[in-house]
Amino acid sequence: MSKIIAVNSGSSTLKWKLYDLPDETVVAKGMVDRLGLSDSVFEVKYNGEKFSETGDIPDHITAVNKMLKKLIEMNIISDYKEITGVGHRVVAGGSIFKDSTVVTPEVIEQIKKLAEFAPLHNPGQAAGMEAFEKILPDVPQVAVFDTSFHQSMDPVNYLYSIPYEYYEKYGVRKFGAHGTSHRYVSGAAAKFLGKPLEDLKIISLHLGSGASIDAIDGGKSVDTSMGFTPLAGITMSTRSGDIDPSLMAYLMQKLKLTDPQDMIDILNEKSGLLGISGVSPDMRDLIATKEDNKRSKLAIDIFVNRIVKYVGSYMALLGGADVLIFTAGMGFANPWIRQIISEKFAYMGIKIDKDANENGKGLRKISTDDSSVTVLAIPTDEELMIVRDVVRLTK
Amino acid sequence: MSKIIAVNSGSSTLKWKLYDLPDETVVAKGMVDRLGLSDSVFEVKYNGEKFSETGDIPDHITAVNKMLKKLIEMNIISDYKEITGVGHRVVAGGSIFKDSTVVTPEVIEQIKKLAEFAPLHNPGQAAGMEAFEKILPDVPQVAVFDTSFHQSMDPVNYLYSIPYEYYEKYGVRKFGAHGTSHRYVSGAAAKFLGKPLEDLKIISLHLGSGASIDAIDGGKSVDTSMGFTPLAGITMSTRSGDIDPSLMAYLMQKLKLTDPQDMIDILNEKSGLLGISGVSPDMRDLIATKEDNKRSKLAIDIFVNRIVKYVGSYMALLGGADVLIFTAGMGFANPWIRQIISEKFAYMGIKIDKDANENGKGLRKISTDDSSVTVLAIPTDEELMIVRDVVRLTK
Repeated sequence: MSKIIAVNSGSSTLKWKLYDLPDETVVAKGMVDRLGLSDSVFEVKYNGEKFSETGDIPDHITAVNKMLKKLIEMNIISDYKEITGVGHRVVAGGSIFKDSTVVTPEVIEQIKKLAEFAPLHNPGQAAGMEAFEKILPDVPQVAVFDTSFHQSMDPVNYLYSIPYEYYEKYGVRKFGAHGTSHRYVSGAAAKFLGKPLEDLKIISLHLGSGASIDAIDGGKSVDTSMGFTPLAGITMSTRSGDIDPSLMAYLMQKLKLTDPQDMIDILNEKSGLLGISGVSPDMRDLIATKEDNKRSKLAIDIFVNRIVKYVGSYMALLGGADVLIFTAGMGFANPWIRQIISEKFAYMGIKIDKDANENGKGLRKISTDDSSVTVLAIPTDEELMIVRDVVRLTK
Repeated sequence: MSKIIAVNSGSSTLKWKLYDLPDETVVAKGMVDRLGLSDSVFEVKYNGEKFSETGDIPDHITAVNKMLKKLIEMNIISDYKEITGVGHRVVAGGSIFKDSTVVTPEVIEQIKKLAEFAPLHNPGQAAGMEAFEKILPDVPQVAVFDTSFHQSMDPVNYLYSIPYEYYEKYGVRKFGAHGTSHRYVSGAAAKFLGKPLEDLKIISLHLGSGASIDAIDGGKSVDTSMGFTPLAGITMSTRSGDIDPSLMAYLMQKLKLTDPQDMIDILNEKSGLLGISGVSPDMRDLIATKEDNKRSKLAIDIFVNRIVKYVGSYMALLGGADVLIFTAGMGFANPWIRQIISEKFAYMGIKIDKDANENGKGLRKISTDDSSVTVLAIPTDEELMIVRDVVRLTK
């Protein structure tokens, strides 16, 4: 029996889950928060118990060392040799990484270089790999990119209608995100339906605080709502999604901003559901206040509206759809949102099974048998996908 | 018999058509180019003849005076009293003008104030009105706004997912454009089909060098692809349409631009078909070179792709469509573009009648009788719509 760690490290966090193979169960999980800052928080959850400690953890190596020692101390593992692989989530894989890949010093260098596309994420993720490399030099590591699933896109979908040289010189194109999630749920859908993934046209709705929609044909991502960065696409918790690019210049002038990054920060952090409603970035708060607060209702309506339009556009792009998947925090947990989105497609024969939608548990079909498109609610599991990639690439 | 002039004046141009009422025929037309600059060009076309002259025309009053005198001189009219109305195209009507309106000094002031939304257009259009006001003080004038047709949009479609206060303080919202064209062709479609406009769900594709798509339900514009400005939406001749807003900051840094307006200028003037292909902003040139030039073909493919996605999104928004309209320069004149766009909807039962599409003339149905959606090719006529608004509002 072997164990694999799935790691999601950022500049000031390191989250991990320890999996038992081959049964793919989560044995323990934990995190380090405020990494590199004072009063770092160190947590491990195992067997229904939670260990928590506060103290300075200056860097990723210290964090990983502390975590591994704690695994021994808590009798979660008896020897480091039980760990047969480590998988890392990486946000930006650019045009280089078309699949997950075994980590080498060169790969780490490339991930650092791609920080231009994900300045808040890639450096911390590379630091996480270097820490494991140092402490467990003989354990293979695998990098799993949020973008690589979308590398199957055709130029017609990934290029912007801007001077072509910006693509050649500066690498400007659509990369998308949430690829690991869209890949996981599309595979899970095919398995659940007992049909080859190659035969399915799927539209996957990953609706979390970040949210994206993916058009998947035969298991390949054809187009996705996020763009060069995760700012584009549908309305999100605090992100604007698509806007008229002219607004950048107009608003910078009105707000007396001189640095365009300040405007992008507003579009990333103060927009979306929060910006429209002025109430909260959290859909649950908006639903709770929608009867009394017009702007809460407006934010919900706009969120649904943008999703409906993207789903419609992907139906046209794919030439119809066999399966619609709702996943991620809101997408899997909120039957009401699934209901009101799906209702908009009643005109084309989508029918929701109210009982399955509201009262069912776990991965399930929530459409009726005579619905024109099969609608599924699927809990996503990016960590498990990472673990499976470790197994696949280190066999 | 009365005559009405439809005017489209800009800062350095003044185009006009003289209509005979009630039969709505164009009697004469003409233009002034390089208005306010040296070597202005003055042209009148009448009865198959063309009068042309070059000389300095310093302002709109001089231009209008010259034009009216020429109408007498060429025996097109015998007295100014024959002119019973003047209609003006106005680009930006903001949230103020929800319909065309009779011009008053207050209206002219408001149009000037709205120049913030259309700095290149509204001032020249106001100047045109002031010129006619001075020379023909007793003739009623009507302002017809590109935006007013879209004022029927619901907040859920016209608001962006950005802080709500930007809408309240700075008027930031979707205004759309080409409203006069979308209104004209949707009315013409209902008349042609012998059905009440109120009963029809229409998706109108105005495909010219500027291009927009409009979702029209019961004669009301529900959503449209252009946004706060005409930069947003689908790929155009030189405009990018929608992009990830993050690209503004990223490209400004790469291109070492400090003024966001310079970036917007690139997105307006050097992008779209021209930017992708590097060949031409003109679809005809791209079609002519598509076999030998990969980027010409790519530009066409991207143009079609964005249109297909918008049409799909509006089908979802409207809950299906009864009519698809192709209009404007490319939309009406190019059967091949209509064919390749329509083909993408074969999956949902749209069928094009090849002969009607390629060999028919004028306003016509180009879909087969068993097509799930009726597809029409309609020559747009914004000037005639302007003339009709003059009649309607000055009766």
